[in-house]
Amino acid sequence: MESKRVCVIGAGPSGMAVLFHLNRQIKRNEMEVVCFEKTSHSGGMWNYDWRTGTDVNGEPVHGGMYRHLWLNLPKECAELPDYTYEHHFGKNIPSFLPREVFLDYLKGRWRSEGDLEKWIRFNTVVRHVRYDNASETFHVQVEDLAKRKLLPSEAFDYVLVASGHFSTPNFPDFPGLNQFPGRVSHSHDFRDASEYAGKRVLAIGGSVSAEDVAIQCVKFGAKSVICSSRSEMNYDWPSSISVRPILQKVEGKKCFFEDGSWSEVDAIVFCTGYLHHFPYLDDNLRLKTSNVLYPPNLYKGIVWMGSNGDGSQNGGNRLLYIGMNNLLYTITFLEIEGYWAVKYIIGEVKLPRKQEMVDEWKLWVERSKKIRSVREVPPFQSSYMRYLSDECGYPYDVNVDDLFDEIASHKYGPNQGIITCRDMSFTSKFTGNKSPSKKLPFMEEFDDSLEGFVNVNYEQRGSKL
Amino acid sequence: MESKRVCVIGAGPSGMAVLFHLNRQIKRNEMEVVCFEKTSHSGGMWNYDWRTGTDVNGEPVHGGMYRHLWLNLPKECAELPDYTYEHHFGKNIPSFLPREVFLDYLKGRWRSEGDLEKWIRFNTVVRHVRYDNASETFHVQVEDLAKRKLLPSEAFDYVLVASGHFSTPNFPDFPGLNQFPGRVSHSHDFRDASEYAGKRVLAIGGSVSAEDVAIQCVKFGAKSVICSSRSEMNYDWPSSISVRPILQKVEGKKCFFEDGSWSEVDAIVFCTGYLHHFPYLDDNLRLKTSNVLYPPNLYKGIVWMGSNGDGSQNGGNRLLYIGMNNLLYTITFLEIEGYWAVKYIIGEVKLPRKQEMVDEWKLWVERSKKIRSVREVPPFQSSYMRYLSDECGYPYDVNVDDLFDEIASHKYGPNQGIITCRDMSFTSKFTGNKSPSKKLPFMEEFDDSLEGFVNVNYEQRGSKL
Repeated sequence: MESKRVCVIGAGPSGMAVLFHLNRQIKRNEMEVVCFEKTSHSGGMWNYDWRTGTDVNGEPVHGGMYRHLWLNLPKECAELPDYTYEHHFGKNIPSFLPREVFLDYLKGRWRSEGDLEKWIRFNTVVRHVRYDNASETFHVQVEDLAKRKLLPSEAFDYVLVASGHFSTPNFPDFPGLNQFPGRVSHSHDFRDASEYAGKRVLAIGGSVSAEDVAIQCVKFGAKSVICSSRSEMNYDWPSSISVRPILQKVEGKKCFFEDGSWSEVDAIVFCTGYLHHFPYLDDNLRLKTSNVLYPPNLYKGIVWMGSNGDGSQNGGNRLLYIGMNNLLYTITFLEIEGYWAVKYIIGEVKLPRKQEMVDEWKLWVERSKKIRSVREVPPFQSSYMRYLSDECGYPYDVNVDDLFDEIASHKYGPNQGIITCRDMSFTSKFTGNKSPSKKLPFMEEFDDSLEGFVNVNYEQRGSKL
Repeated sequence: MESKRVCVIGAGPSGMAVLFHLNRQIKRNEMEVVCFEKTSHSGGMWNYDWRTGTDVNGEPVHGGMYRHLWLNLPKECAELPDYTYEHHFGKNIPSFLPREVFLDYLKGRWRSEGDLEKWIRFNTVVRHVRYDNASETFHVQVEDLAKRKLLPSEAFDYVLVASGHFSTPNFPDFPGLNQFPGRVSHSHDFRDASEYAGKRVLAIGGSVSAEDVAIQCVKFGAKSVICSSRSEMNYDWPSSISVRPILQKVEGKKCFFEDGSWSEVDAIVFCTGYLHHFPYLDDNLRLKTSNVLYPPNLYKGIVWMGSNGDGSQNGGNRLLYIGMNNLLYTITFLEIEGYWAVKYIIGEVKLPRKQEMVDEWKLWVERSKKIRSVREVPPFQSSYMRYLSDECGYPYDVNVDDLFDEIASHKYGPNQGIITCRDMSFTSKFTGNKSPSKKLPFMEEFDDSLEGFVNVNYEQRGSKL
């Protein structure tokens, strides 16, 4: 029997979860796996790139990480049952991690399965994917960016789209921006908040990006930050951060808001989210969705059902999307999607009849649309993960809804607020140990290097190591 | 006879020059012309876009114009013989133009030929071009960005690549940039120099971008600018601009240069030029070159000769590149290339035997490589334009080598310098009139709007109107 050819697009957390379980599950020669990664490294958006705009090869910069980013959820909400933080770092460390520390954990996890990079073709960008009905194969054309050479199409039996959806800014217009005398950027291009020291900043957007850009700016010396949004942002903000309704227009440095108020600002940062953007996919293969809890036309949130969602023109049930939903659960979510996808590819998970698939994805979309508050998201995502786990036999329970609820109580509660949230400690579901406190509160800690964070004698409370 | 189908990629100055002459030269129904333009407007890089990174559709932002850009050459070096500035504006205006004024002139020129936009499909990006040897046609696949829909391939007899080469930054790395606490950007993302008021700026690069970014920053209040480059930049700089050898590394805010010196800066702007970047072209159709005076593999600088330059796999002599060289002559250059291309498409210009074509492009590349100083460029480009004109019968002499020489004398001369250069006045080759002086010297003029510049009672010296 000829071996199946599997194409994974992107070596970020989604793609690596797939490679991890492919490596663990497939028998030698059963599959030929190729992962195309346009950058020179795995880890996707979790890598810091000082460039903005285009990268060294002229491709759009993938990641939007900033230098001093810390996770906005505790590591206990993003912990793999069979690879705990305590195991990786050899000790218990605080709950809220700087970017570099989290990436180190992810890389450790991937290394723990051996050499997954054997499958990755770095510096290789996918230019075009189409499905040929006659031969029932995908034709994938890639460009070798190092050689600046578009290569001949390769045939694949499966294509897994794992290229993320935090790369292409949603960048709307407001009247007057073409005359604004200062920097206007999207949070995707936010790199070092020091740039805004002494400045008055407008952050447009009402979600986690706006929250964190505002906090970063204030932490690094911005004079003031206005968050302008359509949603409510009733947090216990420091005095230098204020909230306004959505922007209406800009005149010179004056920004006018929907309630008739105005303020002068020196810089504007769009925290308006991202587009699901797959320019390399043929139109009938292309997921078109905003950043929702359950995108349409995906059976199990993974298997492409075609643009009409009815299973026609769908790449023969062999086009799989990983990590395309709006996330609160992150790497455990991707882990289970990757696990399910691999079990499906190796034939241990079977698809039901087409109509059942259609009915199921529609049901999940309906359920997702009933979610009204952020507090309902973790239980929704847990039930989705259980829905996959039950079928594919993923052996762990990753439900930490109670942790999410605890954080929400603090963040949205009357006395705690958004600034002190990152100073909290949580207990790992998998080790049972509560994390130690940081050396300094988040707002006073300016060293977020891996060494600076890990090489500290943290109190080890009830460590089972 | 079936009408020929002509595809023009890009509606900037290069593409519009082609459309202009197609409109003038082709007979009704002789050709079917389609121009694909990814933005919503013609004019290409001469439009100001407040966005950086990606545009409203998630495509890379095309243009790198900044708000207060003025041309660095007088309009008399970029004047069309049959459409003078004096004709367009109804009076003589100063020699050095703000961006918006120049764009107004270009748009007037294009409008003067009637409705060229009838051929342009705006908000449509070319995703893939390949040449089918069997049918001897190009297959062009485009995406309708408004509908977010990849359309089926269309067949064309000719493809003209006019998508420019000032869109994709050349963005090299230097050690330590990933720890630099301030903004690092490419000049493509330079928008409003006000952002740098009070700051110490490092401009990396030794050419016109670095010169102008430095001048802009100082004009809008930067504390100081260092130009760091491998080339010499011996101008009469103001005291706030200094020149250093090329950057070696960055440590925190300290920038170390090749001569062992170092300085602290607050922001870094890469003025390191652009890549010729055609991700949408099949590999055998793709021009691969740096920004040189005569790119390889192009007969007459226009007709694609294949990746080997020998006329094999070359798209049947029907893939044409417009405006792919490094320019001093700009719109007259594009005008003549467009004119030649159209005369070729309608059959009035014939190609010689293949070997002659190969010999000719190689000869021109050899000639171009002998150019050692910027002063030799205008005569080289004039001779190239004459080479095209003589064959295609372009009826005007656009040689203004003497003007270029006059500017060079000032810019590089011991007493004039780079800052006062834009206050000079020149005489139009085509009207014989010398331009009036500006209201204020360039460094004191902060109104660069179309109205502010044009609605002035300039002295009309010897106007023939």
